[in-house]
This record gives sequence, C-alpha cells and structure tokens, in this order.
Amino acid sequence: MTGDLARLSLNTATTKRWTLREAIDGAARAGLPAVGLWRDRVAEAGLEAAAKTVRDAGLRVSSLCRGGFLTAADPAGVRAALADNQAAIVEAAALNTDALILVVGGLPNGDRNLAGARARVADRLAELAPFAREHGVRLVLEPLHPMYVADRAVLSTLDQALDLAAPHPPDAVAVVVDTFHVFWDPNLAHGIARAGHENRIAAYQVCDFNLPIAADALLSRGMMGDGVIDFTPITRAIADTGYTGDVEVEIFNSDIWSAPGDEVITTMTARYRELVLPHLTA
Amino acid sequence: MTGDLARLSLNTATTKRWTLREAIDGAARAGLPAVGLWRDRVAEAGLEAAAKTVRDAGLRVSSLCRGGFLTAADPAGVRAALADNQAAIVEAAALNTDALILVVGGLPNGDRNLAGARARVADRLAELAPFAREHGVRLVLEPLHPMYVADRAVLSTLDQALDLAAPHPPDAVAVVVDTFHVFWDPNLAHGIARAGHENRIAAYQVCDFNLPIAADALLSRGMMGDGVIDFTPITRAIADTGYTGDVEVEIFNSDIWSAPGDEVITTMTARYRELVLPHLTA
Repeated sequence: MTGDLARLSLNTATTKRWTLREAIDGAARAGLPAVGLWRDRVAEAGLEAAAKTVRDAGLRVSSLCRGGFLTAADPAGVRAALADNQAAIVEAAALNTDALILVVGGLPNGDRNLAGARARVADRLAELAPFAREHGVRLVLEPLHPMYVADRAVLSTLDQALDLAAPHPPDAVAVVVDTFHVFWDPNLAHGIARAGHENRIAAYQVCDFNLPIAADALLSRGMMGDGVIDFTPITRAIADTGYTGDVEVEIFNSDIWSAPGDEVITTMTARYRELVLPHLTA
Repeated sequence: MTGDLARLSLNTATTKRWTLREAIDGAARAGLPAVGLWRDRVAEAGLEAAAKTVRDAGLRVSSLCRGGFLTAADPAGVRAALADNQAAIVEAAALNTDALILVVGGLPNGDRNLAGARARVADRLAELAPFAREHGVRLVLEPLHPMYVADRAVLSTLDQALDLAAPHPPDAVAVVVDTFHVFWDPNLAHGIARAGHENRIAAYQVCDFNLPIAADALLSRGMMGDGVIDFTPITRAIADTGYTGDVEVEIFNSDIWSAPGDEVITTMTARYRELVLPHLTA
C-alpha cells in the first residue's frame, strides 16, 4: 500500500473467477492500495456490503465499470439507458469513487448510422452530466479500439472523447486512457497532452494487445509485456500531464482467467514495476 | 463496360480461386471495364502475358496490389524492400496502371516502436517516390484498420496517410480509401475531403466489415450489405471530391472464396448498384 505500488490498482475483471471479497483480499495481500470494480460483482455482494468490504480492507476504489450503452434510438431504450446510468452514478458515489467508466455503446441492431449513434451519445451525456456532478462522480468516456466500433463503442479515439466531453465541465465528464484501445493512434501523444491540459484524465488502464487477435476479439487483452504495446511512450505522455492517479490493470484473457489469482497479481506487479512504473513520474 | 458499370472493377482477390485469365474473362463476361490485380497472380501468368491478356479482353487495370512492407530496420531488409518496390513500380507501369497500392508494413519481430517504424516508412517513401514518378506510377498509401497496426500496417488513418504523402507531389504519392479499413474513423469525412483537395485519391475500394470478426482477422471483409458499413456517407464524400475513378471491390472472405466466381460477380454487381452507385455522383 506504500512505496512503489502506491498507484497500482487491480481491476477485478483481471481475476474474473474471484468473488468481490476474494479480489479485495487478494489485492490487499499483494500490498495494492486500490481496486477497480465491476457493477455485476458489486451487485452480487450488495452495494453497502461491497463498500464496507473495500473500506475494511483499507483499500480505495479506483473506478467503477461501467455505465454507458447510450446509443439506443427508441424512447424505451433511451429511458432505460438513462435510468441504468443514474443507478451506476449512485453506486459509484456509494463506493466512494469519482470515476464511472462509460462504454458508450455500438450501433443498434440493423442500424449502420455511426454519426447518428454518436449524436445520441452526446445527447445522453448532456442529460446525465448534471446528475453525475451533483453526486461527485465523473462520467469517464472510454474510447474503445476501432474493431469494436459497431458492436460496443462508437467512440474510438481520445480526441473524439475529448470533443464529446468539451461541452461539460471536467468534473462531470472525463476520459480514461486504456493502452489496449488507443496504443495504435498516431495522434495519441497529442490526445493525452490535450486531455491533461483540459483536466480530463480520470483513469489510466494498462494491459497489452496480444496477437493473433483472439477468436473472441474482446479477449485479446494481455498481460503487460506479452503483446505488442510499448508502455514507455504512453506512460511518459501520461506522466507529462501531471497525472498522479491510479494505474489500473484490466485484462480480459481466458488464459489469465484460468490461472490462480495470486499468481496473476504477482506477475502483474512484476510487469508493472518493469514496464510502467519507471516512466510514471515526469 | 458502358453504362452503370463503367466504374466498377473486380479486384481479383475477391475471386481468389480463379487464375488471372479466369478472373479477367469473368470480369469481361459480366461487363466490367476493369480489374485490380495482385502481383502473385501476375507473376504466375508472366508480366507481359498478363498485360496482353488484360488488353485483349478490352479491360483496364485499376490498380496493382501491392508494394510496401517498408518497416524493416536492418540494412538488408531496407535494401530488399526498396528492390521489391522498384520491381512493383515497373510491373505497374507495364500493366498500364498508375496505382501501386502500398501496405506499409507492421512492426519488425520483437519491435514495439510504432513511431520508429512510421519514420522508416517516411524514409523509404522519400527514396521510392522519384522512381515511381519517373515510371508514371503513384505510390498509393493504404491506411489499414487499426487492428492490423502491429503486424501489417503502422498506417491507420487517412489523415496519417496524407501527412506521410505531404512531402511528395500528388502524382508520386497518393492514397486509397478502403471502406473496411476507415469506416470507423470519426474524422473520415474530413480526411476524404482533404485527400480530394490535395489531389491524392488514387483509388476507392469497397467491401463490408463483417461481425463477428473472423478467426483470421484478415478475412472479416464482407460483401457490401452483409456487414455494418453504411456506404452512403463514405461514397458521397468521395463523390464530393470530384473523384471519377474506379470503384474496386476487394473482399477476403472464405465463404466468398468458396462460391463460384460468376455468382460472386453477380452479387457484387447487384450490391454495387444498390448501395454504392446511387451515391457516386455528386
């Protein structure tokens, strides 16, 4: 919880088989100060119980995953999205994290209109931002890799996220930089600098991009060092903005999910020390 | 060869099982005016024989695929890339096409430095551009979908391609807009307009983006209408630039490769008439 791991957070998706309590205990055993939580696991445990478990372990919640899915075009879908995101905002506040990660959603079934879907995301953000701000929670836009543009997030780049955030104050709408999703972007250094300048970097998530792409493309996320990403320039760009927040490790990967959680955290900690930490201070 | 198919070209990768002659005959039977050729098939047939077969069928070569793979860092790799691309330029000239498509290459084995690889692409382009221009051939930069950034092309967006092209005259270095690779880009309309303004649109390739992503990610290209791409805004943006060149259909897809070539061309022609052609004139 001190020293060189003072900013390292276990996103509990990385140890998917663990219950919330097991993940919290595992993070605490490894000396990590924080966890990134998922709403389904929080719901299993119960919101108040989850918050208490984190507190009792002496940990922080670095972020809550996730809200979003804002692209529905039908009135019922719009209402459902607003209600679900309001619930997520309340949950984030109860967990004492100010970062609610949003995956904005893909195209509705049979719809191919990316511009329309993006406009609806902007509309929903405008409706949700005041509510989030009142609760002390930031809506944290996550640009996803362009291979997910149609089915998961019509938001693909950091610059696009910042353009979406621009109408709102930075304590209401922010962004997360996830190495897997943005490492390929030729404008990444500029986007990170811009995000820092606009005070909108709410979270930094690290994992690698494995090749070949997994049969389920969502599961191509890898342990740092196992894939093609150079963490040095990205981490330096983050550090150069003055970001002093947590570094979450969030990995969806069937091999990692099959390994014992404590081993995964040991590897993750070693790779963090080797590949990320040396570049994390400007 | 006249009327509404006057700009439709069969890229022979779409009918992969056909020999060069079979593809040329199939295109001619269907009334198409042009074919996009691949160097391996041209080599099989012999360069002069290939050129004669195209001429004798009364067709044009809309483009030659492909040069590129310019990211090698070692001197032998650099020399080999230059020699191979010079050969490809000569082949394009012999086939009477001015469009040599370049897939710029990914990261060398074990290398994670995207910025370095991109700089080497710029260096190789500077070495090749005068040779290409002397031969009346344009080096046509192809931005590839970001899922291929590490293993195939460190060039991912149209804007990035135009930045790479900028030091060179437009009759030496140009770009291709391939719907599969760029449809997701929130800056696409701007990029196409810029490419038109800079006189650098050398080719327009259409195919769809199928979901789920195929086990071999290269094979997720689909027949127009089978995937998630809306061809209307992209085609209109192309038309708005004043582009009057060919529209190539290039599909890598195991199901399409298993179907009889004439059926594939029939479907392709129908989908082109339905989804692309109505938007192709400004």
